[in-house]
Amino acid sequence: MIDMLEMGKTARRAARQLARASTAQKNAALLAIAACLESEADSILAANDLDLADARARDIGEALLDRLSLYSRLAGIAADVRSVVALPDPVGETIDQETLPNGLRVSRRRTPIGVLGVIYEARPNVTVDVAALCVKTSNAVILRGGSETLRSNRALVKVIREALHAAGLPPDAVQFIDDPDRRYVGELLRLNEYVDMIIPRGGASLHQFCRENSTIPVITGGLGICHLYVDASADLDAALNVIFNAKTQRPSVCNALDTILVQESIASDFLPRVLDHLGKHGVSFRADPAAFGLIGADARVTAAGPDDFDTEWMNLTLGIRVVDGVETAIEHIQTHSTGHSDGILTRDRVQAAHFVDEIDSAAVYVNASTRFTDGGQLGLSAEIAVSTQKLHARGPMGLRELTSYKWIVEGDGHVRP
Amino acid sequence: MIDMLEMGKTARRAARQLARASTAQKNAALLAIAACLESEADSILAANDLDLADARARDIGEALLDRLSLYSRLAGIAADVRSVVALPDPVGETIDQETLPNGLRVSRRRTPIGVLGVIYEARPNVTVDVAALCVKTSNAVILRGGSETLRSNRALVKVIREALHAAGLPPDAVQFIDDPDRRYVGELLRLNEYVDMIIPRGGASLHQFCRENSTIPVITGGLGICHLYVDASADLDAALNVIFNAKTQRPSVCNALDTILVQESIASDFLPRVLDHLGKHGVSFRADPAAFGLIGADARVTAAGPDDFDTEWMNLTLGIRVVDGVETAIEHIQTHSTGHSDGILTRDRVQAAHFVDEIDSAAVYVNASTRFTDGGQLGLSAEIAVSTQKLHARGPMGLRELTSYKWIVEGDGHVRP
Repeated sequence: MIDMLEMGKTARRAARQLARASTAQKNAALLAIAACLESEADSILAANDLDLADARARDIGEALLDRLSLYSRLAGIAADVRSVVALPDPVGETIDQETLPNGLRVSRRRTPIGVLGVIYEARPNVTVDVAALCVKTSNAVILRGGSETLRSNRALVKVIREALHAAGLPPDAVQFIDDPDRRYVGELLRLNEYVDMIIPRGGASLHQFCRENSTIPVITGGLGICHLYVDASADLDAALNVIFNAKTQRPSVCNALDTILVQESIASDFLPRVLDHLGKHGVSFRADPAAFGLIGADARVTAAGPDDFDTEWMNLTLGIRVVDGVETAIEHIQTHSTGHSDGILTRDRVQAAHFVDEIDSAAVYVNASTRFTDGGQLGLSAEIAVSTQKLHARGPMGLRELTSYKWIVEGDGHVRP
Repeated sequence: MIDMLEMGKTARRAARQLARASTAQKNAALLAIAACLESEADSILAANDLDLADARARDIGEALLDRLSLYSRLAGIAADVRSVVALPDPVGETIDQETLPNGLRVSRRRTPIGVLGVIYEARPNVTVDVAALCVKTSNAVILRGGSETLRSNRALVKVIREALHAAGLPPDAVQFIDDPDRRYVGELLRLNEYVDMIIPRGGASLHQFCRENSTIPVITGGLGICHLYVDASADLDAALNVIFNAKTQRPSVCNALDTILVQESIASDFLPRVLDHLGKHGVSFRADPAAFGLIGADARVTAAGPDDFDTEWMNLTLGIRVVDGVETAIEHIQTHSTGHSDGILTRDRVQAAHFVDEIDSAAVYVNASTRFTDGGQLGLSAEIAVSTQKLHARGPMGLRELTSYKWIVEGDGHVRP
């Protein structure tokens, strides 16, 4: 029985203390967390073993087992925490500063957001990643991981809280809902008096559940139906390489490619090359009638069903549609994209600019793989989530996106006329 | 019977068209709106007359009648629309731009948010203000005004839509829920597929209703329990002037002062001056025991009740508490403030800096009236709302706060390793 209201109040108190911590103190705490992850590796891995044993008994498959396992990962997780130390602390930065004609001195200063609720599935490394980014930005966090990693998360959070305590920061800055009962998620989502932002990390249903049940602002993301349009002017060798990378480099993630749109004048040449190159690596295809007419004889090609272009595949399936040109491609993307990552492969710069203007996705690509939509890849150094909504932050969210700001107004007895 | 789903879809389509409009086109449309407000003044004022007659029949009081009336205001409203023409268009701005070590060219570009839902009470001028700011930022908007201004709003929206049409922009960029039935608010709040942001402008209960029933991100604000702490080191003449301004210049708005906290060493000198100066202008006082001990003999002073320090007065009432120093003042503000506007009056710069660090409100003041929390006063030139939540925007929201951004990534066939 967890008292969520109490957890919220405790988090708020811890957030206030953390807001006072200096960058040096926060960095010292991060180093302490990294060190404790290593020195307490035995107890963490013992807890992880119990989760893994349960998972094996439920026969969840090698892929999921691999995601659960901390064995080969603990050193990497500790290294990631240390790398956060090197990042600049956005809290306290002055965003802009001016003296108004009446003499009022106005500035905005970055502040922590306050208290975050992060709800995620599997992958115990998320527990540490999120805690480290929150400590660095002086945000308290309430974590709610997946039930299959309950014991791993419990062990990790224990170590993190001990390290915070040893470093003189409030352990309650990182709290953990140590009960898989889903009703606590519902209670967390209504703690708007104590929690400032909810970040769900998981599938579409988790995001929808949060959006529909939360009285706290939710950062929506996670679902990516991603497109690449191949224009007749494209460098087709490079295009093939980009498509191959976007589809196969890690098919189970949200920035993986789902559909290619190929201009008709090159389709009869290009599609067999796609079939051959990607097919060799296990990709199967869902083709619209025009594409099916060209490559449908191959066993790996199926005629696309009515929902196929609205499906995030998360596996080695690729949708193919033949289009007459960039306008039809844009229209298709506007209809079927989830606004995550969409791109064009072309050598026509005017066309590329038009595509970039028209496509309203978190990341719009020209001649590059959609797989770059990631904080680390786009220069943010760290990432807490990828947002596909338009408020606060869009696309990869780094440290700065975990801050708010306050206005600071200084006068000499100024009054409003 | 309004089909809200259809209204959402229509708004989304209009938003796409508006996103393509140039700054010149949008400015031409704003000038057309201003001109039409003047040329159609008769029909607008005739509609306003009907609203006013109804309001008079319901005996709603002079203050509210004054808010409803467009009579002396139409020229000013048109002038405000013209002033939006002069403001820079944030849409299309490049926020930052860099070439990564791997040669990828990464930038972020400001985009419209898309579709806004704005829910407000009384004041028909809000209809025009909001429409103008949305047109300037290429956002479509669904407006829902108060029932007492239904006919005024209907006439204003008709004129705005005609002007948009004449200027070659989609009239559906500005839609209006022409029915006072509250269920349409509920339906609007769940149109998350078509509406990107909800802005409530009204009292605490409207904000709470939106937060609890919306599946769309809500900009919360509107409620301001505002404080000024008067330190013994303050310039007491200036302090009296600031308090007088913050309390009386416009008592019915959210940045008006609610409570003063006075350091005990000056209380016996300063409180009688407050009583005298503000009392002359109709202010009455709710005093904590220490303050009551000093000025309680005056008929305008009442002993503060248990909820008085958690009340947004919206009238000429002022709470007074005597505190031992800045730490107690900070603690009081952290407990009772709604995070809108709070300030310190002091000549001690170290203390002022400490207060600014500790107070986590949208606007924190040093030696100035809380009444400056307003987009126009703080240099934003225009304001759609004041936010007291921490995501997306905090404090006054201008044109830039009505934008999102997208990542633009250009490569030369780049793939992720």
